[in-house]
Amino acid sequence: MKKTSPSRKQTIIGDALPRIPWQDRPAGSSDVVWRYSGNPVIPRDLFPGANSIFNSAVVPFRGQFAGVFRADSTCRNMRIHNGRSQDGFKFEIDPEPIQWVCNDPEIGHFVEAYDPRVVRIDDRYYINWCNNYHGYTIGMGYTDDFKTFHQMENSFLPFNRNGVLFPKKIGGKYLMLSRPSDTGHTPFGDIFLSQSPDLIHWGCHRHVMSPKGGKLTWQCTKIGAGPVPVETTEGWLLFYHGVLTSCNGFVYSMGAAILDLDQPWKVRYRTKPYLLNPRTLYECVGDVPNVVFPCAALTDAHTGRIAIYYGCADTVTGLAFCQVDELMEFIKNHSEL
Amino acid sequence: MKKTSPSRKQTIIGDALPRIPWQDRPAGSSDVVWRYSGNPVIPRDLFPGANSIFNSAVVPFRGQFAGVFRADSTCRNMRIHNGRSQDGFKFEIDPEPIQWVCNDPEIGHFVEAYDPRVVRIDDRYYINWCNNYHGYTIGMGYTDDFKTFHQMENSFLPFNRNGVLFPKKIGGKYLMLSRPSDTGHTPFGDIFLSQSPDLIHWGCHRHVMSPKGGKLTWQCTKIGAGPVPVETTEGWLLFYHGVLTSCNGFVYSMGAAILDLDQPWKVRYRTKPYLLNPRTLYECVGDVPNVVFPCAALTDAHTGRIAIYYGCADTVTGLAFCQVDELMEFIKNHSEL
Amino acid sequence: MKKTSPSRKQTIIGDALPRIPWQDRPAGSSDVVWRYSGNPVIPRDLFPGANSIFNSAVVPFRGQFAGVFRADSTCRNMRIHNGRSQDGFKFEIDPEPIQWVCNDPEIGHFVEAYDPRVVRIDDRYYINWCNNYHGYTIGMGYTDDFKTFHQMENSFLPFNRNGVLFPKKIGGKYLMLSRPSDTGHTPFGDIFLSQSPDLIHWGCHRHVMSPKGGKLTWQCTKIGAGPVPVETTEGWLLFYHGVLTSCNGFVYSMGAAILDLDQPWKVRYRTKPYLLNPRTLYECVGDVPNVVFPCAALTDAHTGRIAIYYGCADTVTGLAFCQVDELMEFIKNHSEL
Amino acid sequence: MKKTSPSRKQTIIGDALPRIPWQDRPAGSSDVVWRYSGNPVIPRDLFPGANSIFNSAVVPFRGQFAGVFRADSTCRNMRIHNGRSQDGFKFEIDPEPIQWVCNDPEIGHFVEAYDPRVVRIDDRYYINWCNNYHGYTIGMGYTDDFKTFHQMENSFLPFNRNGVLFPKKIGGKYLMLSRPSDTGHTPFGDIFLSQSPDLIHWGCHRHVMSPKGGKLTWQCTKIGAGPVPVETTEGWLLFYHGVLTSCNGFVYSMGAAILDLDQPWKVRYRTKPYLLNPRTLYECVGDVPNVVFPCAALTDAHTGRIAIYYGCADTVTGLAFCQVDELMEFIKNHSEL
Amino acid sequence: MKKTSPSRKQTIIGDALPRIPWQDRPAGSSDVVWRYSGNPVIPRDLFPGANSIFNSAVVPFRGQFAGVFRADSTCRNMRIHNGRSQDGFKFEIDPEPIQWVCNDPEIGHFVEAYDPRVVRIDDRYYINWCNNYHGYTIGMGYTDDFKTFHQMENSFLPFNRNGVLFPKKIGGKYLMLSRPSDTGHTPFGDIFLSQSPDLIHWGCHRHVMSPKGGKLTWQCTKIGAGPVPVETTEGWLLFYHGVLTSCNGFVYSMGAAILDLDQPWKVRYRTKPYLLNPRTLYECVGDVPNVVFPCAALTDAHTGRIAIYYGCADTVTGLAFCQVDELMEFIKNHSEL
Amino acid sequence: MKKTSPSRKQTIIGDALPRIPWQDRPAGSSDVVWRYSGNPVIPRDLFPGANSIFNSAVVPFRGQFAGVFRADSTCRNMRIHNGRSQDGFKFEIDPEPIQWVCNDPEIGHFVEAYDPRVVRIDDRYYINWCNNYHGYTIGMGYTDDFKTFHQMENSFLPFNRNGVLFPKKIGGKYLMLSRPSDTGHTPFGDIFLSQSPDLIHWGCHRHVMSPKGGKLTWQCTKIGAGPVPVETTEGWLLFYHGVLTSCNGFVYSMGAAILDLDQPWKVRYRTKPYLLNPRTLYECVGDVPNVVFPCAALTDAHTGRIAIYYGCADTVTGLAFCQVDELMEFIKNHSEL
Repeated sequence: MKKTSPSRKQTIIGDALPRIPWQDRPAGSSDVVWRYSGNPVIPRDLFPGANSIFNSAVVPFRGQFAGVFRADSTCRNMRIHNGRSQDGFKFEIDPEPIQWVCNDPEIGHFVEAYDPRVVRIDDRYYINWCNNYHGYTIGMGYTDDFKTFHQMENSFLPFNRNGVLFPKKIGGKYLMLSRPSDTGHTPFGDIFLSQSPDLIHWGCHRHVMSPKGGKLTWQCTKIGAGPVPVETTEGWLLFYHGVLTSCNGFVYSMGAAILDLDQPWKVRYRTKPYLLNPRTLYECVGDVPNVVFPCAALTDAHTGRIAIYYGCADTVTGLAFCQVDELMEFIKNHSEL
Repeated sequence: MKKTSPSRKQTIIGDALPRIPWQDRPAGSSDVVWRYSGNPVIPRDLFPGANSIFNSAVVPFRGQFAGVFRADSTCRNMRIHNGRSQDGFKFEIDPEPIQWVCNDPEIGHFVEAYDPRVVRIDDRYYINWCNNYHGYTIGMGYTDDFKTFHQMENSFLPFNRNGVLFPKKIGGKYLMLSRPSDTGHTPFGDIFLSQSPDLIHWGCHRHVMSPKGGKLTWQCTKIGAGPVPVETTEGWLLFYHGVLTSCNGFVYSMGAAILDLDQPWKVRYRTKPYLLNPRTLYECVGDVPNVVFPCAALTDAHTGRIAIYYGCADTVTGLAFCQVDELMEFIKNHSEL
Repeated sequence: MKKTSPSRKQTIIGDALPRIPWQDRPAGSSDVVWRYSGNPVIPRDLFPGANSIFNSAVVPFRGQFAGVFRADSTCRNMRIHNGRSQDGFKFEIDPEPIQWVCNDPEIGHFVEAYDPRVVRIDDRYYINWCNNYHGYTIGMGYTDDFKTFHQMENSFLPFNRNGVLFPKKIGGKYLMLSRPSDTGHTPFGDIFLSQSPDLIHWGCHRHVMSPKGGKLTWQCTKIGAGPVPVETTEGWLLFYHGVLTSCNGFVYSMGAAILDLDQPWKVRYRTKPYLLNPRTLYECVGDVPNVVFPCAALTDAHTGRIAIYYGCADTVTGLAFCQVDELMEFIKNHSEL
Repeated sequence: MKKTSPSRKQTIIGDALPRIPWQDRPAGSSDVVWRYSGNPVIPRDLFPGANSIFNSAVVPFRGQFAGVFRADSTCRNMRIHNGRSQDGFKFEIDPEPIQWVCNDPEIGHFVEAYDPRVVRIDDRYYINWCNNYHGYTIGMGYTDDFKTFHQMENSFLPFNRNGVLFPKKIGGKYLMLSRPSDTGHTPFGDIFLSQSPDLIHWGCHRHVMSPKGGKLTWQCTKIGAGPVPVETTEGWLLFYHGVLTSCNGFVYSMGAAILDLDQPWKVRYRTKPYLLNPRTLYECVGDVPNVVFPCAALTDAHTGRIAIYYGCADTVTGLAFCQVDELMEFIKNHSEL
Repeated sequence: MKKTSPSRKQTIIGDALPRIPWQDRPAGSSDVVWRYSGNPVIPRDLFPGANSIFNSAVVPFRGQFAGVFRADSTCRNMRIHNGRSQDGFKFEIDPEPIQWVCNDPEIGHFVEAYDPRVVRIDDRYYINWCNNYHGYTIGMGYTDDFKTFHQMENSFLPFNRNGVLFPKKIGGKYLMLSRPSDTGHTPFGDIFLSQSPDLIHWGCHRHVMSPKGGKLTWQCTKIGAGPVPVETTEGWLLFYHGVLTSCNGFVYSMGAAILDLDQPWKVRYRTKPYLLNPRTLYECVGDVPNVVFPCAALTDAHTGRIAIYYGCADTVTGLAFCQVDELMEFIKNHSEL
Repeated sequence: MKKTSPSRKQTIIGDALPRIPWQDRPAGSSDVVWRYSGNPVIPRDLFPGANSIFNSAVVPFRGQFAGVFRADSTCRNMRIHNGRSQDGFKFEIDPEPIQWVCNDPEIGHFVEAYDPRVVRIDDRYYINWCNNYHGYTIGMGYTDDFKTFHQMENSFLPFNRNGVLFPKKIGGKYLMLSRPSDTGHTPFGDIFLSQSPDLIHWGCHRHVMSPKGGKLTWQCTKIGAGPVPVETTEGWLLFYHGVLTSCNGFVYSMGAAILDLDQPWKVRYRTKPYLLNPRTLYECVGDVPNVVFPCAALTDAHTGRIAIYYGCADTVTGLAFCQVDELMEFIKNHSEL
């Protein structure tokens, strides 16, 4: 896929993706982010033995789409599966979880994997997920072909979740966002950034942002990075989830921030309102009610289109759309740091 | 509006309200309280930037209806807004929160306001709400015209919620119901009554009623006053909410009590069954599932009709109806103190 | 009802029940357990004053069906009621709770009863339920005619729930499964088996099985016996519920185990996946969202048909079907001890 | 040991015990129960490898004293040990825990035993303790000679603690007091009584008494039976511990009750004040500060002397004295049911 | 720093009290506040039936000293008692709690009273205490002669503690400090100030100060007013307690603040270090370990001497001394707002 | 057991330290670890403004001793201070906390530091401590002269405590033990080992050991590394603390393990009993009762003597002794993995 040279000034720094799944904003709507009318784009029982398919990552791959998908079985085990799609709407997912190639049995033997992200750095696809090695932490691996998957060292000590790599080195180092957590349904959570020379050893940890707004905003309890950050002319565009604690449990919504291009632990803008929150039956009713949880974003630098895959009620996968310039303007106009 | 002189003996002591929003009980139903078929009467997104509109107060005003409405923004900030309606069904609500006139910045600067009640005393409309002054407490203000709103002193020390004024002085003092609370999603709560010579200083606190019925009744966890009490020939009619704690969270239902006319901290009757509980999708699914939360009641003394506005799932506003004599009879026949 | 002598080798050791309620598996489905298309088979408001009818027990009785039904009133009191059906689909339930005959006022006076099971031993029908005697424990009684009900001694000290009798003596003793609990929404729970010479005094307690699978399987938080165990040629078939704790509350699903015929505290097989989990609106939305809770199973030894009555969202009653040989094969093939 | 026939009218129904350990009340004291001046009577490190020795049971045996002692090792394992004394002051305790003879490995294999009580019924000495069989419950065994110890069935399902047998059958059955509990440092606890024809199967459970007095009395959180009840002409004398929850943890004190002779689940008198509470350094400082926990009482029917062994701060064993008639009078004069 | 002479300019605005109990600072000590060498000045068992005597208030009265004392009985009931002393060291306390004269049985009947403060306003002595009226709140009463005690209305709605009146009207109103709380061992707590025209009705609530310093300072969990504020030329001197939450419970220490003379809700200075913390055995060991809790201060305006009575470990009463000018200088030099 | 002579084969791989502080085992004692008779070796108020001095690290330095000391101020701020001693018994500690040289204000500005360890690697002294950078994590710095202290990057993301470096590279990398934690008084905690090429970036995390022994052993709640591991011929000798949760809070004791020399995440032996537990008044009474917390060990390879500095009750510093061969033998004989 080659760089586009469009007439319009491009905001997204990256490739064109003409086949990006897309649907125009519904007539009458003024929402900055809008839902795909055919949602859920991936049903809970796409393959036999699946209880739910959600919180999953899709990337362009060889002219089509590949991805790594969280699918909980009817045993309610959490696993990540390999899958693919020609159009980004209709998916095929392997019923068997990914089998990782790993030389060190100390880390190669594990029993849970969830909430994957996939990022292409150079020509390799790195996968992060929430792994269980004596506590939840960030697992990492890579594939070159979405056939063979190699497991690497876990990035951090437990307890950690929502590890998201940047798509290129910055300042000579790899960068990863993550959310230090604890042993359970963690009732707190900030986003941090860590740096690595080799994708194995991590240090120079920097705080990025905290929940905010007291006891009752959509992002008051905890926040976590969503899709791989999108490089734009104005900074790194980061979709993230925020959690509010109502008297009846957590409510997960989606917002966005713009991070400094060179020192991405510095937040330039951050949405005070959410961009998407649980409203439809498939977002409000399911294994975990009231969850909107973005994990992947496809972008077309040429048109500025963005397609976001997000988990719905921890049960199915939804798809939503936005246009980058509208979005950037909205973020800047509704920002509160 | 002048006192009616009907042929039937009137139970409600008050004005006629011929334009009260109304819908007859559905055929086949024997419910004492029934829902408006067009519910939710106010949708969550009536104006741009609204996440939800619920727990709101409507009063007759100059031949039409005015009100103060809780509207949470898409930032999930809680604010109260000014609004109006010609018929009690179709509302117009200002997208901007009420701006209070207040001389003392110590109390005039605050960031949250929710769950308002409005009561007319003489020719002034007093508003109570849940305010945040170093903890949730009862905010108070008034308006004469639903254009300019004046903030008064907070009624109590934190932590308090559900402050509801009586519509006239009793025993030479103003009376307010409230529910002492704590810092979070309070798992307990009794209704108390406090007295004031001036609407500023409060004392002579009296206990009114407690949750009851062990661990599993609809009002076993906490209770709180709903609409402004309705004066009747048999006592003050008080709609209130009661909360049950299931293993999956709080469930809010509505019941009613009849309080002594002269010493309204004495409960004469109190419904053992609920009058309304979460059953419809708009009451069971939303930002906080399973919530029915009454905040205002319109009454027509002439016909005995009562229209109740109530919050649904902390997301939308519902409307329900009952007839005062049927209701009073039901309360008395199903009372348990 | 006499023993059938069918041509096929029977798996279920018991009577034929030609009138068993039944519906074939939907075309296209490969589920081992499938739902009745007319669910909920018992609505929440079958009789006036009922808030919900669920977690109930049905048995064959004199050519038709009798049962004991948990019906919470609109006071949200928990009570068990007598009821009957000609076909197992359409039920008539007495609006008044069962009045127990009991000589000892110390135990005869109680105020809560829920989650009944009914078992026929010889020609007597024993009822167990969750009783409140200074804490929840297992209440017991019997009826010979579903007209007069006699209360017996409570089986155990508090705190206990989900007491389920075996349908015959084993090793010369009566056997009961139960789940020791605590005072609230117990966040743990194993199944134990106790033995009795006289249905009054219980001892020789044996541990049967524990929750399993870490923090996120369908049965990781607690488990409890469901319907009366079904005797088969391969062991006692036990349907049970398992509970997962999501960040938004408990999720109740149904699995099954096969217990040793002679020493039924020894588990031979146990489903790693669930058999039924909350998926439909009537299972996901209600007084307690996301609950599937089996309490009774009808069996036809001749055809191997099984009809399971289960509570849905603690609000209505559902009906599901399976075929014993398919089920036994599934359990064995998906077992993990 | 033969029954005494003293000149004074005897209150205690039982044997004389002329060698009862004894020390007169200190001059100037008017306490009903007073401490042994040589306390702690058993130090924490009486034998090598002992971390603490407390909550232990002593009985007269063949003209001297025998006992079963809780001794936690320096691994902080909880075990019960066999021991003996010539005078009730100076003890010898076996460094190795008791090895139980048991035929059924299902119950015979266990890893924790604590808080024993010993009772003589006819000529056999029964031992109860807190056992761990898939949760804490009441273990039972017996010895005839304090050399060989035989394990019996656990009395109840988990979760239970403080099981105490009566020293004879009443109404043809054996009776046991116990305190249903939960999995941890249980914050609640009532005393119940259960009945058995054979010391194996238990039923006919009766509630005896609850904590009382709101949030701040010495017995407001939980209570549990202490030594084996003492038969008197006025009823069964039961020493028990009560627990208060201060902001810095549990405080254990000792009180007493008089139970009906024939229906000992009926409480006739119960001390509103405590009899002994943590005051000395050895009661206030140790592995668990502020604990006074009685487990055994020696009685001399002839003189009315009572010697109470009690655990101190979960670390050492204390000894205290009282005179039965003074005590009974105090209980009756300071009773509140 | 040497003793001041009578010619010095007085800092304390008030009366001379030549008989103030006093002891010079121990040689070698540089502490600003030092302990009485004879501590505890009041033992736990000063009168029969007393479990503990602490958190008590002493005032000059007719040339000697009178006071109201918290004494918990051996029932662990909390009560306040009348008492007196000739020298402020040796006390006589009535064994029977104060009997209040009260006309309204609704508030006159109560069962708990603790942590009293006494203040003289004009020639009347007002007593505040923590009362239990459907939850802990501030009880109020007065006496003119320390013989007859009159109960007044409770000042606030529950839940409140540590109510402390100012010794004179300011701005035409009575002022009271208090600490809004919740139902249990409240883990939070700010000091507020409320105003009243009549000592009955309270309003115009102002926030005074919050806990501070993150998770580990002596005042990070909650704070509460101690003795009646002392008027000085530089502001109101307020001793207060602050609480830290260690992994083993609350630790109570004493600090001080200087409040604005005219608007005493404005804090001018506040000690960052504590002035007194639990260090001695009588402060560290007792019914509640690690508690220093000041409730009264005697002052001699002539010499600047201050004697502070404080509760120790919720068990005994301690006495400490300081000199006002040294203290004021220390507060100002170690202040952090 | 008698003193070893220089001709003995050395167990400790390291330097002789003839001036090691030492005291022989008390006559009559058979303890493997025994206390210094002059404990506490450092009092709580060694310098003005100190509330407590504990959990501190001492190393040999230029023929005498240097160290870094945790001293909480009377503000209860936690800070680490520089100090020194000629004999290891009598210390001088700077009243002002260490001022770190640091170029990056992002990490250089912090407000809390506690529980330091010091290790010499080559000729540089590295200090680790518990730092607060948006949550507790492991701070790191170094000094060459105990005059100037340089701050380095924090080693891990929050939440972490008890970071302890090995005294040399193993397998070409630096190694650090740590205990992932959460935001408060963490009720869980395993020891992990992480690896670094540069003391900045850390990876290849390996699990070392977990708490063990159910609910009631001395190390059942959490464990954490103590002093820098001691290299011996048999493996790395690691003293560590273990925590038990009694009903009245945490109890901290000390045990030891022997780790594999080359793969020190593999535990070869581990003490089932503790080596030292809170028994003396200075260990049982203080700011946090019942704490023994080792942070440093001096060793004399020539004689095999080990001197351990440990925090007592979070208030003072204690000193204890052992002989390496006796200790290693004890660990092996009382090991349970």
